[in-house]
Amino acid sequence: MPVQYSTPPAEALKPVRGIRLGCAEAGIRKKDRRDLTLIDLAPGSKVAGVFTQNRFCAAPVHLCRRHLARGDIRALVINTGIANAGTGEAGMIAAEATCIAVARLLSLAPEQVLPFSTGVIMEPLPVDRLERGLPACLEDLEPENWHACAHAIMTTDTVAKAASRQISLDGQSVTVTGMAKGAGMIKPNMATMLGFVATDAAVSQAALEAIVREAADHSFNCISVDGDTSTNDSFVLIATGLAGNPEIDAMDSASARALLAAVTEVAAELAHAIVRDGEGATKFISVEVSGGRDRDECRAVGYSIAHSPLVKTAFFASDPNLGRILAAIGNAAQLHPSLRDLDVDRVQLWLGNVLVAADGGRHPAYREEQGASAMQPQEIAVRVNLGRGAAAATVWTCDFSYDYVKINADYRS
Amino acid sequence: MPVQYSTPPAEALKPVRGIRLGCAEAGIRKKDRRDLTLIDLAPGSKVAGVFTQNRFCAAPVHLCRRHLARGDIRALVINTGIANAGTGEAGMIAAEATCIAVARLLSLAPEQVLPFSTGVIMEPLPVDRLERGLPACLEDLEPENWHACAHAIMTTDTVAKAASRQISLDGQSVTVTGMAKGAGMIKPNMATMLGFVATDAAVSQAALEAIVREAADHSFNCISVDGDTSTNDSFVLIATGLAGNPEIDAMDSASARALLAAVTEVAAELAHAIVRDGEGATKFISVEVSGGRDRDECRAVGYSIAHSPLVKTAFFASDPNLGRILAAIGNAAQLHPSLRDLDVDRVQLWLGNVLVAADGGRHPAYREEQGASAMQPQEIAVRVNLGRGAAAATVWTCDFSYDYVKINADYRS
Repeated sequence: MPVQYSTPPAEALKPVRGIRLGCAEAGIRKKDRRDLTLIDLAPGSKVAGVFTQNRFCAAPVHLCRRHLARGDIRALVINTGIANAGTGEAGMIAAEATCIAVARLLSLAPEQVLPFSTGVIMEPLPVDRLERGLPACLEDLEPENWHACAHAIMTTDTVAKAASRQISLDGQSVTVTGMAKGAGMIKPNMATMLGFVATDAAVSQAALEAIVREAADHSFNCISVDGDTSTNDSFVLIATGLAGNPEIDAMDSASARALLAAVTEVAAELAHAIVRDGEGATKFISVEVSGGRDRDECRAVGYSIAHSPLVKTAFFASDPNLGRILAAIGNAAQLHPSLRDLDVDRVQLWLGNVLVAADGGRHPAYREEQGASAMQPQEIAVRVNLGRGAAAATVWTCDFSYDYVKINADYRS
Repeated sequence: MPVQYSTPPAEALKPVRGIRLGCAEAGIRKKDRRDLTLIDLAPGSKVAGVFTQNRFCAAPVHLCRRHLARGDIRALVINTGIANAGTGEAGMIAAEATCIAVARLLSLAPEQVLPFSTGVIMEPLPVDRLERGLPACLEDLEPENWHACAHAIMTTDTVAKAASRQISLDGQSVTVTGMAKGAGMIKPNMATMLGFVATDAAVSQAALEAIVREAADHSFNCISVDGDTSTNDSFVLIATGLAGNPEIDAMDSASARALLAAVTEVAAELAHAIVRDGEGATKFISVEVSGGRDRDECRAVGYSIAHSPLVKTAFFASDPNLGRILAAIGNAAQLHPSLRDLDVDRVQLWLGNVLVAADGGRHPAYREEQGASAMQPQEIAVRVNLGRGAAAATVWTCDFSYDYVKINADYRS
């Protein structure tokens, strides 16, 4: 059960001009589930993406990077069941064969196709089954298919994740719609987070790349379920350019800022949904760090808190365990060396709106009952002021429950 | 229940000439348990220590650093129950008052006393109770008291941890005996790892400092229970100089190497005991990383594996989940930037003696049954060869079980 999240209804997910989606049952790993998705892009669409930093990145990630560098992308293909990661040279051949199959069907060059895989690691991708499933995807292609495809890309997700916004840019209505999957670095070998957002705005390639990086930086790059970065993590932004707005190029224009805001909102809604659907999660926690010298050190403090199993089990237990949070702050220098000179006497810590620590220790007015009641809600804000600058960052995470161990200790099945 | 560890019998813990230990019930937080320990050092003893890097370090850690810089230490005092961490200025006053009380009793200057505290964070240290307990410690002082005091420094430990070695240095018999406490960053607010090792060898201050750093680097700095560094972690090495050996000064002498080896053996035995007694641990795992460019990058890979909750739950479940281990290796660049150019096609991974991955994927000869049986024992070696150098490092950790969540989600009691 996700923490206070449900999939938006199909009619809330606005079609994006120039984007058609279709899905089908290809039987890649299990029968009777939609496991293959095709996204068709209108000619002239631009695509930009950010990918996992894991050195063991999957074959499709390698291929995406290569094809994106060339440009002129016209199709995305996404399979669940098998991640095609940790598969060596055979995995690269399988990913290439996938692109060739899609290209043949759509009369494209293989380099115009971006492949994505998610599922079990270190198992071979059955390209033959994938290939046999493609015609049904083609037949299913519709601009209205976001809701169905958001379901088709799920693996251990308990809920489909999608979001949509409409804004006005220079008098033209512009749509931003996206979908994502992920619920942790995921049940035995399932990998992992995929996000796809499309807009019909006209944007230059350089601006699109700036927007995808910036939006990721304020959404998917600020969440943690278990601190692990998967082999397949990908976030792709598509702009079809069919909305009729003057092309956005410089990032300092009002329209660029408005589009960035809309894309970031959609990406953040998807990223939050991943945390809310985190394995075994019972609480959604925002760690808001301010007063840092730069955003990176704020984020390091946020991640140090969000990754600590001790902090996460305390949230599960609704235990206002301040010592664990302070110790996690004190440990953040391991993630970001600039914090080695952090003056802990200037750090302030709030649970919700209760000031719990200041001057290097517990705040004199703080009473444990206040902390205990601040830990009860399903949504909790932990606020930290580092007292040494004007930068800020927020990291979103969930708690750590018996069910996390249960889900992850279960043998792959 | 610790994983294959029990406290050595009292007679196996050899007294160290010039060291007397005593413990007592001071009622610092709970009645009817020994919670106060005094260690008395012969005049002329030398002391060196390494301490937590956590910025929220405890008041006694501050004071230890200050007093060690001055030298001529003659006593150590250790209380359990209250960690005196996150206590601000009041905590410093309490730690100083502790040193004053010990100094008065032993006719020393307060700067000749090193204070150590472990227990609940952010609660005030009741110095009055501690002071009232000191005379009983004084009366109890005996060279043979290592076994009793190893029990008196326990908090959530389920077993007392101690070790002893005797070696011959230039024809003189030299003893190295030590004790430690710790079982994770510990049950609600308990902090944390303390280690005390003493020898009667004659060693210069500079050599002693080199030995304590090197021994820590191959023992306490290579273990992980939950990846958290506490506010109070301390490891102290004492040399009384009463063994009659020629003073060890240069670290390249045979006697320096022999003493370093003995101290490292004792420290490693204590560090392993902490992992074996890790909260909820059912398995003891050695992560042996070789083929790195330097020791730091090997250790980063080891910690990336040892800290991954996904890897640790897989060990709990005896699931040979290779994808999780490979992903953790691929993530180690987050801990050590030199790994950003890690060539995963050169990485080899063994579970025990089974080669499971090579050439960027699963080894062709590997069968899952082999991995499953390699995951069964209570002691498991994970071996990684990075294939790019001659350096090596080992990290020791334990698995992640339901009981870890249970212990840490339990309200402080």
